Amino acid sequence: MAETPKIRFGIIGCADIARKVSRAINLAPNATLHAVGSRSLDKARAFAAANGFPEGTKVYGSYEAVLDDPDVDAVYVPLPTSLHLRWVSLAARKKKHVLLEKPVALSASEFEEIIEACESNGLQLMDGTMWMHHPRTAAMKEFLSDAHRFGRLTSIQTCFTFAADADFLENDIRVKPDLDALGSLGDEGWYCVRAILWAANYELPKTVIATRKPDLNKAGVIMSCGATLTWEDGKIATFYCSFLSNLAMDIAAVGTKGTLHVHDFIIPYEEKEASFYAASESSFDDLVTKWVSQPSKHVIKTEIPQEALMVSEFARLVADIKFNNSKPEKKWPIISRKTQLVLDAVKASIEKGFEPVDIQE
Amino acid sequence: MAETPKIRFGIIGCADIARKVSRAINLAPNATLHAVGSRSLDKARAFAAANGFPEGTKVYGSYEAVLDDPDVDAVYVPLPTSLHLRWVSLAARKKKHVLLEKPVALSASEFEEIIEACESNGLQLMDGTMWMHHPRTAAMKEFLSDAHRFGRLTSIQTCFTFAADADFLENDIRVKPDLDALGSLGDEGWYCVRAILWAANYELPKTVIATRKPDLNKAGVIMSCGATLTWEDGKIATFYCSFLSNLAMDIAAVGTKGTLHVHDFIIPYEEKEASFYAASESSFDDLVTKWVSQPSKHVIKTEIPQEALMVSEFARLVADIKFNNSKPEKKWPIISRKTQLVLDAVKASIEKGFEPVDIQE
Repeated sequence: MAETPKIRFGIIGCADIARKVSRAINLAPNATLHAVGSRSLDKARAFAAANGFPEGTKVYGSYEAVLDDPDVDAVYVPLPTSLHLRWVSLAARKKKHVLLEKPVALSASEFEEIIEACESNGLQLMDGTMWMHHPRTAAMKEFLSDAHRFGRLTSIQTCFTFAADADFLENDIRVKPDLDALGSLGDEGWYCVRAILWAANYELPKTVIATRKPDLNKAGVIMSCGATLTWEDGKIATFYCSFLSNLAMDIAAVGTKGTLHVHDFIIPYEEKEASFYAASESSFDDLVTKWVSQPSKHVIKTEIPQEALMVSEFARLVADIKFNNSKPEKKWPIISRKTQLVLDAVKASIEKGFEPVDIQE
Repeated sequence: MAETPKIRFGIIGCADIARKVSRAINLAPNATLHAVGSRSLDKARAFAAANGFPEGTKVYGSYEAVLDDPDVDAVYVPLPTSLHLRWVSLAARKKKHVLLEKPVALSASEFEEIIEACESNGLQLMDGTMWMHHPRTAAMKEFLSDAHRFGRLTSIQTCFTFAADADFLENDIRVKPDLDALGSLGDEGWYCVRAILWAANYELPKTVIATRKPDLNKAGVIMSCGATLTWEDGKIATFYCSFLSNLAMDIAAVGTKGTLHVHDFIIPYEEKEASFYAASESSFDDLVTKWVSQPSKHVIKTEIPQEALMVSEFARLVADIKFNNSKPEKKWPIISRKTQLVLDAVKASIEKGFEPVDIQE
């Protein structure tokens, strides 16, 4: 059997994150960098030169030119969120599959338009949540799904914070109301909410209530916030995200029979191995002076970094559509939309003075 | 200089926890077991025999008899919370210093009567929150107080859960509305709230809001609950406590410059050493594919277990009063009261249908 040809990627926009994803496309065995476009041809050229683009890569002075290139199978869209609807719609019209940075949209209803644009053209849509594709994530999920070792999820606490520098707080797209208007909630909160939904088998919470005292910048963009999510079955989740605290990325999930801890769930401490801690039916000694056993550390190795595994999974789905007449995998846009729905509810709760907001599917 | 005589303890009630504290009194170099009283003389005898009480220990068939023993300097009170006010008041009248199990009272106003009974008699009052006395706690506090390594506290998430067995859920005093009426909140939530206040330098939060969907038993006692606490400066805290989940006891504290993680803060995994993880000014590599450095593990050894250190600190204060005419150390009842004030607010928020409750000093 002949080897399936590699999926050819075009990148629209030279955002910082596109450097990492360019490398990932190079590393993914079934993908190749084909084109990059920027509003400035010089910027696109410099980006291609600095980021290991292969000889013969097409370099364009506009995003449109990338979309018009008939050899581009799929585009990676690292543009500011406020531009997602416009550029994904155009990409879909040109029959390009879309790997889309998160947050996927400014609201779930806007994202529904994006889904519609891709679906109606038979195109794969996937968001850029890299940690979903790390083999550690599958290993953790196996533990969380184990009725004997973990039981039923009762509580999950997540956080993602980092200390942005002065330049970021002044100039980054994530502090600008006209670009990534959801700020820390859209950028960091996205991961927290995704982790919560992931642990809850993507069952949406019934009610979301934002934590008082979020930090907003002068333009009203969220610099830090938190929320509590509750489900009908009594399960609860809390998260906290901030541009104004030291780097932290935790999941602490508690079940009726087990616990899971991980402190680097979004970006592992090391690129080629990652770990988590699991405990089952933990107990004390007779006098309650110590634990009978400690949580066990599970180390998962990966030769290919998580972002390349993401590209590879996306390219595999695209190739299946292109060469095998398969349908797009709906799972990915579905979980993107659910994540966005929860972000919308957190934002609405903040805007309503921290009132509880029920989520409507 | 002659060695200071040991402080002589009387124990009123043969609760399970009294076994651990009896051992702790034996281990503390400046304390000695002098008497134990139960409502049944046989039970008191059996307890003394089983728990290493020295020859010559007084064994009484009533609590009153312990309080009437003129050689008892201090009493340890492991009775159900609903009995605290009555028995501490009687103990204070008999001039006994009081080491009191937590939760210290059913409400802060009730605890204020307990404080008054002790203060007006010049007696030391301390609650039985053992982890406060572990040297690890001091080491963690040193880190949290370091402006360069940790910065300003911005968020803290704590939990304490354990999976109670069927007998506990049916018969333990902590599931009975007439005994430890605060249930999981009073038992486990106490530690979570204490950890939060401890990290916040005992600054009370402005607002407390209980999480929806607490679990109540048929008698209306809390089996699991959570809450979010907020301060004027934007600091936030969340906690979760439950009798219905696997054993977990976490602190995740995030500051502007550092993070602290500990997963066994109440009962260390091992009796003679305990650890925590600290990180400062954490960052990623250039491409954001890994961390530049990982949190560091700090191991603190202790020859004497934390409960014996608690007894020893309490006995030291009592000896200072008894032999050096010192005044009681007010710090301990002050932080007990603040902890109770927050529990009151959580309970009030649950009763008000999860409305925010402002804390009044």
